[in-house]
Amino acid sequence: MNAVGVIVEYNPFHNGHAFHLEQAKILADAEVVIAVMSGNFLQRGEPALVSKWKRTEMALKAGADIVFELPYAFATQQATTFASGAVSILEAARCRFLCFGSESGSIDSFKRTLAFLNNNNELYQNRVKYYIDLGNSYPKASSLAYTDLSPDEQLLDLTKPNNILGYQYVKAVKRQNASMKLLTVSRKNADYHDPHFSSETIASATSIRKALFAEKEKITSVQQYMPKTSYQALLEYKAEFGLFHDWENYWPYLKYRIIQSNPEELRNMYEIEEGLENRILASALVSNDFNQFMNKIKTKRYTWTRLQRACVHILTNTKKAEMDAQMTQAAYLRLLGMTMKGRQYLNKYKSSLELPLISKLPSEPHSQLSLDIKASRIYAIGTNKDSQQRLLEMEFKQPPIIIN
Amino acid sequence: MNAVGVIVEYNPFHNGHAFHLEQAKILADAEVVIAVMSGNFLQRGEPALVSKWKRTEMALKAGADIVFELPYAFATQQATTFASGAVSILEAARCRFLCFGSESGSIDSFKRTLAFLNNNNELYQNRVKYYIDLGNSYPKASSLAYTDLSPDEQLLDLTKPNNILGYQYVKAVKRQNASMKLLTVSRKNADYHDPHFSSETIASATSIRKALFAEKEKITSVQQYMPKTSYQALLEYKAEFGLFHDWENYWPYLKYRIIQSNPEELRNMYEIEEGLENRILASALVSNDFNQFMNKIKTKRYTWTRLQRACVHILTNTKKAEMDAQMTQAAYLRLLGMTMKGRQYLNKYKSSLELPLISKLPSEPHSQLSLDIKASRIYAIGTNKDSQQRLLEMEFKQPPIIIN
Repeated sequence: MNAVGVIVEYNPFHNGHAFHLEQAKILADAEVVIAVMSGNFLQRGEPALVSKWKRTEMALKAGADIVFELPYAFATQQATTFASGAVSILEAARCRFLCFGSESGSIDSFKRTLAFLNNNNELYQNRVKYYIDLGNSYPKASSLAYTDLSPDEQLLDLTKPNNILGYQYVKAVKRQNASMKLLTVSRKNADYHDPHFSSETIASATSIRKALFAEKEKITSVQQYMPKTSYQALLEYKAEFGLFHDWENYWPYLKYRIIQSNPEELRNMYEIEEGLENRILASALVSNDFNQFMNKIKTKRYTWTRLQRACVHILTNTKKAEMDAQMTQAAYLRLLGMTMKGRQYLNKYKSSLELPLISKLPSEPHSQLSLDIKASRIYAIGTNKDSQQRLLEMEFKQPPIIIN
Repeated sequence: MNAVGVIVEYNPFHNGHAFHLEQAKILADAEVVIAVMSGNFLQRGEPALVSKWKRTEMALKAGADIVFELPYAFATQQATTFASGAVSILEAARCRFLCFGSESGSIDSFKRTLAFLNNNNELYQNRVKYYIDLGNSYPKASSLAYTDLSPDEQLLDLTKPNNILGYQYVKAVKRQNASMKLLTVSRKNADYHDPHFSSETIASATSIRKALFAEKEKITSVQQYMPKTSYQALLEYKAEFGLFHDWENYWPYLKYRIIQSNPEELRNMYEIEEGLENRILASALVSNDFNQFMNKIKTKRYTWTRLQRACVHILTNTKKAEMDAQMTQAAYLRLLGMTMKGRQYLNKYKSSLELPLISKLPSEPHSQLSLDIKASRIYAIGTNKDSQQRLLEMEFKQPPIIIN
């Protein structure tokens, strides 16, 4: 059976994602789609709108056949590490193709860019350092350095977010010497001309989330942008847990955790660089909500998402030493769910998967898995008291979701 | 000026406390009453009903002239350490007398008991060990050992809570070679015959708190047991901060803090003995409220208050190493408030106080004082979002309360 892999967050699943899955299957001529999906905390350093279980259900009902969890150790990271973990999982699951969405839509431009930057690596790194020394964030410095270097129009536009991520996937495949072939699909967006995916049916996950949290907006306003099953799943989640998760739900805990720490303790947290701990401490004491806090700690040197990720690590009490020990490679394939076809695939290739398959949590989990378990428990704390216990216990009790 | 010292928590201040202050002044023939009072967390391992500032106001309006804070490092401790910190502060403030309430009412019986236990120390310690080995808590074992040894009716009844504390004060005065003279006042209670303090006007702080938290009880039901000014202060606090503090307000934070910790981290917390960390972790995961949690972790080996204190230390993130470094002696006299007469006293004796007087927090506080500051900040987190910030900032902004 031929499998194509995709790297996703589905926060939430929308029509653009459905299009991507459909195209991936066609381009790879695949029977099975394997998605590696961030767990409850995401790459932008945010809690997912709904739990990984509900997002797995959305994915399986809309085209994916197998969903593996991208471990916390990779999911809440800058693009390089995120990509590296995700690629290693898809490769271990024996995908023949990796298909990602990008603004570019041309896999050749990715390959050319990779070659170009490899050939000009020293020059490029010097430019990056130059811009960092001017006080820019790493992503901003990389982008400026790249612009300085690349007059060639056939190279990627690395100011586009999906090109940046895609480039990291391509780099990871190369670095890991993975056997997967690379495919890319042009991202649908509101100005894309396609009768089935017009601005009336395509909206970004960001704009969907914005609508879901807007006070005056009704939940029905996002209906048109999502598969029916995904919309239904959103409604069910809200009914069961009473909310869509948002940083503000976790702010009281983050504030408490910061206030009870001394600078040294904060400095031990992952992604807290020298000096940041003092700004975090001082700002937490005088902030009433997360947004206010973020605006106080934000400087040119760090991106908003980088700081949000640092906050996730403080919230989950994740230390530098814990993360550094985990980041080199994924240690397992944690199965969140599958269709019947996905099950056939796993039965067939069970013995040749390159990492242990986990469908039920062991009583003494691997240290990488412990980070996922802890993150899920902290995620549950963000709900109200009545539903918290149910969500908290799902991490151990929930078997993989199975969709016919 | 002759000062008498008292060791108090005032949670909340009631008529029995007023009687004690009155008697202390008479017995010591004192012009000034100096109270050393637990801060926001108390000896039983509980958050105080209302903040230390409001309790200071209650005390000053009802007979005390100076209120010093008993540092967190002593206030949230078993009786020996609690007493040792409190006695060292009153001695440093140059009190000529220490007057405490007891069931016994006879200072001679305290002195006889101290002599008796000193003379029979080895025998007593062996009996204590014997009962501990049978699985009893330390206080229970001490009490059983004492009963075995003391047939003499002139000795103290050490099953009574105020006799136990008083005994520790007497021991601390002796151990510290303090110059204060000892006085004790019989505690008023509901069956005490006194026209001014009958069962209609005397109730324990415990029963007052119970009434304040009882759902069907009106706040007016406690009015008769308190000075008017204290009752007024309670009403004001409730109006300003929207609640009386209770462990349940802090339960979400305690649960969060436990869930995000690994066993080793918990074991580093003060008062967490080997093995307790695992019971705490497992119980937190399945408990919906503090009371349920406490009932799950309770065993014969630990008293309820001992476990509550351990929970306070987890809540405030107080490590073994931090506390062990602080417990030998009080490092300062932190002034929470004073009357005009109290101010005269401090002005007069300023230069001969045996510890530095702190009426405004320094920007780089002593490590013992840092524990108090942190505890006050965590205490503030228990209120709702609107009033939290005000309470949080009081720790730095509030000057000593002054009552004419």
